[in-house]
Amino acid sequence: MATAEKLSAIINGVNVNNLFTTIDAIKACPATAKFKFRIQNQWEGGSQNHSTVGEFYGAGQERSRPNPIVLTADEPAILLGKDAAANPVEHLLHALASCLTTSMVYHAAARGICIEEVESSFEGDLDLHGFLDLDRNVRKGYQGIRVNFKIKADVADEQLQEIASLGTGHSPVFDSLTNGVPVSVNAERL
Amino acid sequence: MATAEKLSAIINGVNVNNLFTTIDAIKACPATAKFKFRIQNQWEGGSQNHSTVGEFYGAGQERSRPNPIVLTADEPAILLGKDAAANPVEHLLHALASCLTTSMVYHAAARGICIEEVESSFEGDLDLHGFLDLDRNVRKGYQGIRVNFKIKADVADEQLQEIASLGTGHSPVFDSLTNGVPVSVNAERL
Repeated sequence: MATAEKLSAIINGVNVNNLFTTIDAIKACPATAKFKFRIQNQWEGGSQNHSTVGEFYGAGQERSRPNPIVLTADEPAILLGKDAAANPVEHLLHALASCLTTSMVYHAAARGICIEEVESSFEGDLDLHGFLDLDRNVRKGYQGIRVNFKIKADVADEQLQEIASLGTGHSPVFDSLTNGVPVSVNAERL
Repeated sequence: MATAEKLSAIINGVNVNNLFTTIDAIKACPATAKFKFRIQNQWEGGSQNHSTVGEFYGAGQERSRPNPIVLTADEPAILLGKDAAANPVEHLLHALASCLTTSMVYHAAARGICIEEVESSFEGDLDLHGFLDLDRNVRKGYQGIRVNFKIKADVADEQLQEIASLGTGHSPVFDSLTNGVPVSVNAERL
């Protein structure tokens, strides 16, 4: 591909050449694909805590950010909080929404499919009988989540569904949440 | 319980009387336990999008917040983003961290266990061979997540582990993530 073409290969805001360069780098050195993402959380009292997102490991080396990102959490008053931030299960929906969207537009870009706009809405059902130990038959977590994507793209109706399936078919958070992830928990004295 | 005692029943920053009032309300009217949490997401281009967290349904009625909360998402440069926000899989770790912490301190409060401080760290493994369709045997999502809690409380060592298990045993995000959630996705034209 000529240099001029490479420079113009921005689709959906994604530099497609860099995407293919990443793929080539992984093919040449499979360990490049290994990433470790990390956060540290600090309890502030009651329903409030925050996470600090700083360094991560990827493409063969430790990587730091110039300024760590702080993510907050609280609960609404009805759940005994001060409503100063989104609550944990709302953060989970944001993780899912952001991952489905990014996965969709990246993979569409790799296929040369231009997307103009994307909006989506997410709703999840929780029954407090689980969290509060009031009914063993009710799970603690979400019983189900419904997602609705609205996509603006100059494609046929059937390709609209294919675009959406690029998200569900590749999203790390969608895979993690729908198929489950092993989580090991250690506790020690501070 | 006398009024004076009720007023003083704040443990771990949690109003324990309100917690028990919630439990009594659910026992009297089981539908009170039903919650629906919601977000709307808007793609901004490339790796960037944001979610708006506003109203939710809980305890028998629709509930709105005076000011909607905005949660952002981006990717670091190595993943073709501008690093203006945490990425989706980091948001997933924050959802897990905040939920484990809140679940732990709420359930400890309900049992009269005072916790002084809580810190925790989270690390998850991702292999891009999955996301990039380079190896069908590698999953798209987290392969595993490791959690380390540090807890300051005036309890015996064995009770320290029990406190941590109050988090894993009740957290809606931990349950959702470890056991999986059915997610239905619809797509339509914008």
